[in-house]
Order: sequence, then structure tokens, then C-alpha cells
Amino acid sequence: MPRRSSTSMKDVAALAGVSLGTVSNVVNSPALVSAATRDRVEVAIQKLGWVPNESARQLRAGRSRVISMVVMDISNPFFTDVLRGVEDEVHDRGYHVQASNSASQPERESEQLRVLEQQRVGGVLLAPVGGPNGRADALRRRGIPVVIVDRAGDETGYCSVSVDDVEGGRMATDHLLGLGHTSVAVVGGPGTLHQVRDRRLGAEIARGQHGGTASLLTVTTPSMEAASGVAAADQLVSLPDAERPTAVFAMNDLLAIGLLQGFVTHGLRVPDDVALIGYDDISFAASAAVPLSSVRQPRADLGRRAAELLFEEMDAVDHDLAHEHQSVRFTPELVVRRSTAPAGAKAPASG
Amino acid sequence: MPRRSSTSMKDVAALAGVSLGTVSNVVNSPALVSAATRDRVEVAIQKLGWVPNESARQLRAGRSRVISMVVMDISNPFFTDVLRGVEDEVHDRGYHVQASNSASQPERESEQLRVLEQQRVGGVLLAPVGGPNGRADALRRRGIPVVIVDRAGDETGYCSVSVDDVEGGRMATDHLLGLGHTSVAVVGGPGTLHQVRDRRLGAEIARGQHGGTASLLTVTTPSMEAASGVAAADQLVSLPDAERPTAVFAMNDLLAIGLLQGFVTHGLRVPDDVALIGYDDISFAASAAVPLSSVRQPRADLGRRAAELLFEEMDAVDHDLAHEHQSVRFTPELVVRRSTAPAGAKAPASG
Repeated sequence: MPRRSSTSMKDVAALAGVSLGTVSNVVNSPALVSAATRDRVEVAIQKLGWVPNESARQLRAGRSRVISMVVMDISNPFFTDVLRGVEDEVHDRGYHVQASNSASQPERESEQLRVLEQQRVGGVLLAPVGGPNGRADALRRRGIPVVIVDRAGDETGYCSVSVDDVEGGRMATDHLLGLGHTSVAVVGGPGTLHQVRDRRLGAEIARGQHGGTASLLTVTTPSMEAASGVAAADQLVSLPDAERPTAVFAMNDLLAIGLLQGFVTHGLRVPDDVALIGYDDISFAASAAVPLSSVRQPRADLGRRAAELLFEEMDAVDHDLAHEHQSVRFTPELVVRRSTAPAGAKAPASG
Repeated sequence: MPRRSSTSMKDVAALAGVSLGTVSNVVNSPALVSAATRDRVEVAIQKLGWVPNESARQLRAGRSRVISMVVMDISNPFFTDVLRGVEDEVHDRGYHVQASNSASQPERESEQLRVLEQQRVGGVLLAPVGGPNGRADALRRRGIPVVIVDRAGDETGYCSVSVDDVEGGRMATDHLLGLGHTSVAVVGGPGTLHQVRDRRLGAEIARGQHGGTASLLTVTTPSMEAASGVAAADQLVSLPDAERPTAVFAMNDLLAIGLLQGFVTHGLRVPDDVALIGYDDISFAASAAVPLSSVRQPRADLGRRAAELLFEEMDAVDHDLAHEHQSVRFTPELVVRRSTAPAGAKAPASG
């Protein structure tokens, strides 16, 4: 977004159809302006590429010593483990951590970010639901740095920490194909989640690497929660025997635990009748009824590194230093436990 | 705390050794005052029982539409399930939920409450680590209602929602004694947690109800996390066979899952060699390697009811209405799964 130095606050006010005072309030005291008006002014600011006179450093005055993290599912241990990594790093610096839940809904994510802006928090860690969020840009314009968690930030111009989800999806599927399975269900959703898209892509890559003959059955779930895994198991069990995949790649461990429960309910044994691999390697994966193979993400490291990047950017803003955005990408790790076994070890039981 | 109408702001200033302006700032703009000075003024306010002239309603002006919940362990699914109940209720009213983690440390709880006070949130749900927290009183004095979660509030003069932990501890132990076990380990800690004290008391009551002949072995853990369960299993396994309890009551499911892992590592079978019951009935209890018997707490209901009580109190403050504190107490429920079996089904294996 090139800064057009010829643009003034007047232009913004004219385009948005508001007074100068209102534009000033949107920038300095957003809580005083109605949401609808703020949105109009924000759009005008973005269209014109206007940069307020105040430096970001000045805007930072009055920021609280709070780091806020917006997660997609606060009841998923993956995110609370990341959060604990964040806490380790943040607490040492005399800051406090607060968490908000977007419940994987883009509009709720925007609301949460708007609230954080009003609260004038020190910095934000955002595990985004979908694409770039205009609210995050607004935070940054007010001197509140944002670091993107669990998604590469290259395109968005933010610092980011992520784990290579394409590689993770490839690893999981490669493991199943390497065990001789030729028909694999790839379970996860909704398809709008970048994690889902990336892991699916990784599954396709593994398929290609294994000669391209295996069949991948994509099962799109409404959520990444255990209940969606149970429903996916119902769906798979209802397929005719010949069409039913002998292996399942679940895109997180909650889905895998749900699938495991569903299969057991229908009398299918894991891994004898169906092999199952999850993703995240949350602590409950190892202690599941059938200990789950999974793809380990370095959760606490992810959180610690994200907090480090955030503090670096906050420091840069505070001292008017140059700051270059960094994308830190971790590599996931395959963890093999009892839930995956070679294909054809036993004939598939009927559902 | 009786209001002494003869006390003035001057008295507070004199006792604290600060100016009138500083006392005013502590009440109205606490962020402007250093922590040390604020503490001194707070102590003086409490000693003198001074009530500022501003009504609580006036103090509420500028509160944000945020409900904050301070939990003891954000990675324990018990608390995230409660939080989701809170979200259901809060979101419908156009409010937003934020969570902070005290990590079971009283001083961190106080810090988190201080931050919430500065943020002027609308209301606070507090799952307290220890006894009454002076910071919570300070919040209330500034017109921010506080509802106590997971602990009865009778003594503290707050609204509260809780589950009867004495009865839960009694149920769990009664179940084990009813299966014929005569030596039961009661595992949990630290002993400063009221949940631990109450559940231990319940265990003693059950022992009395069964004739008082059974032996209860109290194992105090440093935390309520799975790692402490693994360590407790090590400790129990190292006991001479004759002294080792044949049944374990773990005071939450994370401990139980850790104990299960520990026992399996040492070659002890659950429930054949040792019966095991957990507490909370988190969703992972049912899908554990050996599905866990547990004591179910109505987690989402707890959260919803807490939020309702908070909004009632916020309404009362907003409209200068009378408000009577309520203690809502839920009754837990015994859930029997495979991890508990009658005593003496098999001879104990050696560790």
C-alpha cells in the first residue's frame, strides 16, 4: 500500500461523508464512533491509502501491557498448548495474556479484533479463520502490531509463525500409502480453512509420489471438532464394503478421536479394519483408546516464537526502528503409534 | 463491610499518605497510578470502609462490552467447556468473552484482575485459586460485578455457581468402596485448592458411611495436570505390594489419564490390577485407552448460569436496582465406565 503524501484527512472525510472530527475520532478514540460510521471511514482510509500524521509510536501511548491471542477453537488442546508457549514468553516480560475465541467464524474474528483495538492492547497474536482481515490492518495502523499464528504470513505482510501444513498432510498420507493402503479417506473441514486446503494438497502430493494410483476420498466436515469425526465415521461405515477406504487421514486429533469412537460403535476395529492417523499430536492422542498415530506440531515453540516476533515488532514501533517482517516456518514430525497398520492385515469387517 | 458515612476522601488520603488527587485517580483512572501507591490507597480504602461518592452506576460509564473469565488452567478441557457455556450466553447479548489464565497461582490471579480493572471490562467470571481476592473487591467497588465460578460464594458475598465437590468426592469413593476395595489412594493437589479439600472431605465421608474400616491413602500432587498423574503412578507402584491401594480416586481426569499412562508403563492393568476413577468427565475421559469412570460436572450449564447471574448483577448496577447475591449449586453425577471393577477380580501384579 504506497503512501500517497498528497492525501489529507479532508479527503478521507469527504469520501466517507463525515466531519474531520469523526475521522480523527476513528483514528484516536474509535470507541466514540458507531460501528457503521467507523467502517465507512476505514474503507475511505484504505481506498485513499491515507496515513495519519501521528507516528505509530505516538499512537502506542496508553497501550496496556496485554498481549491478546485470538484462536479458532479454544477447546482444542492444540490452541491452548500454543497459548501456554505464549504465556511462558510473555509473562517473563511483565505482560499479561488474554485469549479470545473466534469459534472459526470470520465475523466473530472481526468483532474480537475490533474489541482489542478499543482496549488498546499492546499486541495481538491472530490464528486467522480465513483470508487477511481488514480489522488486523486497522490494529496495525493504530500502532498495535499483529503476528499471524499457524498460517504463513508472506502474502499478508505480517510476521508469522506456522508449521508446514502441506508437508504435514503429505507425511500423514505417505505413511498410509507406504503401509500399502490404496484407498484413503481424507477427513476435515470446512474447506475454507487454510489448514484443510494445505493438508489436502499435501495428501495429493503424496498420492502423486506413490504413482498416482491410490484413490483419495475427500470427506468435508462442518467443523474440526470430535462430533464431526463421529459423523464422518457414520458416513464412511455406510459405504458399500468395496468402496470403503481402508485408511483414514483425519486433519486433527479431535476428528480422529471422534472417528475412533464412531468406528468402534459400528464394530470396526482400528487399525485391523481401518487404519487411522490424526494431526497435531495433542497429549490426548497418546492416551486414546487406540493410541493415535499423528503429525506432531511444535505447539509450545510456535507460541513462544510468535510472542518473540511480536515483542520485536512492538520494540521497533516504540523506538521508531525499521522492522522487517519474518515468516518462521516449523516442520512437522510424523509420530507412529498403534492406530496405523499395514493394509490387508485382515479382511474388512462389514459395517 | 458497613459503610461509615463519616469517612471522607481526606481520611483515605491522610492514612495512605497521598494527595486527594491520587485517591481520586485510584478510583477513577487507576492506570495513572503506580502499583505500589494504588495498593497503599486500596488498603486505606478498605481499612476505613470508605465508599466513593460516585454511585456504582456512574462508575460503570465507559465499561466495554467484554466479559472476562479468569480460569485456573486454560489447558484443562473442564475450563474451556465452561467457557463455551459462557460464550453461548454472552454472545447472544452482544458481548464478547475473553479468557485469562491464572495457572493456579494466586499472585497471577491478582495481576490478571488488576489488568481487567484497568481495561474497564463489563463483568468478570472468576474461578479462584485460593481464598477471597482483594482485587475482586476492588473491581466491584468500581462497578464491575464479579461472579465466582466453581466455588460456592456464600462466605465471600458474591454470586456464585459451583458443583458440590464434597458430594462428588463422596460419590467417587463410595463407588470404589462399594466395589469391595478396602484400600484407596486419593490423588490430587496442591492441598490449597478448595476443590482438592472438598473432594478429600467427600472421600472421608464415604469411608465413614462404609463403616470406617477402609484405608484412604492421600497422595498430594503439585498440580492437577497429567504429568502429576504420571508421577503419582510412579509413587504408588513403588509401594510394597501389600501396601499398594487396589483403587485410585484421581481428583480430575487429567490426573487420571496420567495415572493410566503411568500404570500401563509399569505393567499394571486397569481395572484388573488397579481400579481408577477420575473427575470432571471431560470428553477425552470416554475415549481414553481404558474408558474412564468419572464424576460428571455440568460444565456448559455452569458457564451459562454464571453468565446469567453476571448479567443480572450488571443490570442491577446499571439501573440502581437492589441485587441479592445467589449461590447456584449443581449436583455432580457418577459415570461408570471400564476403568473401575470389583476388588480382588485378579491378584495384583507386581510393579
